[in-house]
Amino acid sequence: MVIWRQAKSNESKIRGQGSGVEYKNIKTDGNARLGQIHTQRGVINTPAFIPVGTNATVKAMNQDELKELGAEIILSNTYHLYLRPGHEAIKKLGGLHKFMNWQGPILTDSGGFQVFSLSPLRKIINDGVEFRSHLDGSTHFLTPELVMEIQAGLGSDIAMAFDECTPYPASREYALKSLELTTRWAKRCKKVFEGQGTRDKGQALFGIIQGGIYPELRKQSAEELIEMDFDGYAIGGLSVGEPKELMYEIINHTTLLLPENRLRYLMGIGDLLDVLEAVGAGIDMFDCVMPTRNARNGTLFTSTGRISIKREEFKTDSNPLDPNCACYTCKNYSKAYLRHLFMNREILSMRLNTLHNLYFYLNFFEKMREAIGNRSFEKFRKEQTVILKNNFHEG
Amino acid sequence: MVIWRQAKSNESKIRGQGSGVEYKNIKTDGNARLGQIHTQRGVINTPAFIPVGTNATVKAMNQDELKELGAEIILSNTYHLYLRPGHEAIKKLGGLHKFMNWQGPILTDSGGFQVFSLSPLRKIINDGVEFRSHLDGSTHFLTPELVMEIQAGLGSDIAMAFDECTPYPASREYALKSLELTTRWAKRCKKVFEGQGTRDKGQALFGIIQGGIYPELRKQSAEELIEMDFDGYAIGGLSVGEPKELMYEIINHTTLLLPENRLRYLMGIGDLLDVLEAVGAGIDMFDCVMPTRNARNGTLFTSTGRISIKREEFKTDSNPLDPNCACYTCKNYSKAYLRHLFMNREILSMRLNTLHNLYFYLNFFEKMREAIGNRSFEKFRKEQTVILKNNFHEG
Repeated sequence: MVIWRQAKSNESKIRGQGSGVEYKNIKTDGNARLGQIHTQRGVINTPAFIPVGTNATVKAMNQDELKELGAEIILSNTYHLYLRPGHEAIKKLGGLHKFMNWQGPILTDSGGFQVFSLSPLRKIINDGVEFRSHLDGSTHFLTPELVMEIQAGLGSDIAMAFDECTPYPASREYALKSLELTTRWAKRCKKVFEGQGTRDKGQALFGIIQGGIYPELRKQSAEELIEMDFDGYAIGGLSVGEPKELMYEIINHTTLLLPENRLRYLMGIGDLLDVLEAVGAGIDMFDCVMPTRNARNGTLFTSTGRISIKREEFKTDSNPLDPNCACYTCKNYSKAYLRHLFMNREILSMRLNTLHNLYFYLNFFEKMREAIGNRSFEKFRKEQTVILKNNFHEG
Repeated sequence: MVIWRQAKSNESKIRGQGSGVEYKNIKTDGNARLGQIHTQRGVINTPAFIPVGTNATVKAMNQDELKELGAEIILSNTYHLYLRPGHEAIKKLGGLHKFMNWQGPILTDSGGFQVFSLSPLRKIINDGVEFRSHLDGSTHFLTPELVMEIQAGLGSDIAMAFDECTPYPASREYALKSLELTTRWAKRCKKVFEGQGTRDKGQALFGIIQGGIYPELRKQSAEELIEMDFDGYAIGGLSVGEPKELMYEIINHTTLLLPENRLRYLMGIGDLLDVLEAVGAGIDMFDCVMPTRNARNGTLFTSTGRISIKREEFKTDSNPLDPNCACYTCKNYSKAYLRHLFMNREILSMRLNTLHNLYFYLNFFEKMREAIGNRSFEKFRKEQTVILKNNFHEG
């Protein structure tokens, strides 16, 4: 806590006026970038992995564990917190950081993706989206203005503009209309953001690029957003069912369009092969439920590939999950015990597995940053690709 | 870890030969006893609360947290571990302590209670009990001999004799037959125990007194078991539906029959009003799922009474659950956050609630021991009874 609070005042002096969140590039290696995000709540080293804490909790972890694991920023969801407990309640309690007792930076997703993926019924009106809560079926209406008000109430360090996540497949015509809607919404978000004074409190606003699988539409979306001058740019609407080659093409194409002095965030993508591709293209930030959700489903990442912990052969295996891993789980418990806990759906299974997978991910990102720093990212990428591919279907 | 391992060698010297588990009385206050259980894995202060770790895990906790909370012994279940992963697997892995990485003492329940409460079908034959697994419906046959073999494989510090848990209501005739069966089974358990050499490895064996609500049958059961000379005596078959007054009568009556130099264990009872009654009667050991199960259901113990964390009024309550509590949960999180986690059925809810309730219970037992040590147990009992009763129906 103390460290983060001190960072706040120091950072303020370094940054001076302007955005609450600033990107500082340290080194590039090809298109890959090593850098730092300076925020009032501390520095985030990039490329950064952002653990997902949908309901103001990274599932199965407590906040001290996240800090000890080296998480420098976490993500929470506007959609979920708006529905429960409500942004008014969190605002009254002093904001999201105080509410969940997390002193580090928080990024809040705008709710665009969740409205489209979770709500049983939704209707886009130009003003916003009418949807039904996945919790109780109640009807709600999200607009760019409300989304900004919610994120201001939460007091996140990085807020996201409200967008429509274009599905796949989508016709060129649909994708164009969708990105035009996203642009209009982005403009309204920007307007509210500039007026509501949260920038002065250290909050930054990112725009989200849409355009489906159409390079020229991605270009149009990027250009329209860049003209509005956001603190960072996210690439949304990927990994929604399109082939990997197409996804990679759009990532590489779009990232090249982005200004060098701003942050680049690839939303919702965390397959490490995709991460390697995207970091190679120049992406700085990633969020994904993969390490945490896989952990709860018994799929664990190791230095030699993925493992399904439920395999019969582990029943009497007294070895740690990964002898090369220094995490709490690997230092204290055997594969046999982890398998036993998983087979019994014990809470400790989810805890130990999540802790391990997050450690693995955060460690992978650290090694990746080292590689960029040493200008050996391509070597790292080739080595890791072999390991990841060799074992990807083992589980 | 290191502390426990050192305790092992020191204790061996102190105890010399004989039982692996020895009771040392420090002080009495009325019938209440302050004492210590000396085991090869450390000292347990009595009256002791034993957190329940059915499947070789105290639900939601890790083993370091249990140790930090001050748990000096935990309980695991023979029935559950026999079914999954199997005692042979655990034996192969070096025993239960190594399997779950818990260096402190472990008590294993014999499975008698679980066969009767969990199995969808069971049939008592004189040799043992045929039952169906609650997990997959497979048929098994537990005998006193097998139960001792399982507990030897697990390597628990305190093993329990196989018993029939007499239900309530039960006719005098049924209760008599049932206790006679329990006595025959206890004899067979003792015989196997003496022959299998686990006493030399530090294991102790407790007999379980049955007899339902019939004082003279409790007396008969106690006398028959005492004649066999067990390392400790448990009172079983209570809190199975009988009125509290009857339960208290049986506890007081039975405890008075037990030898002073042996441990007295009241099985499965953990309502703190009952605990106060039983400690006043001279009981040394308690196990109960109440703090852990209640925690997962959102019922939390505080210094002013029980609280249901889901209450609407806590939605914007930034105060800790119990301002007088020094546990991790109360030091770090608000009632509003605990309520939010509970409403979302988040894993962290179960963790923080369980940690708090176990802290409360272990702390309550510590204060109770202090009171006996100061010969002020009756005063403590009266004070606590008022608090516990005043708030018991608040949630």
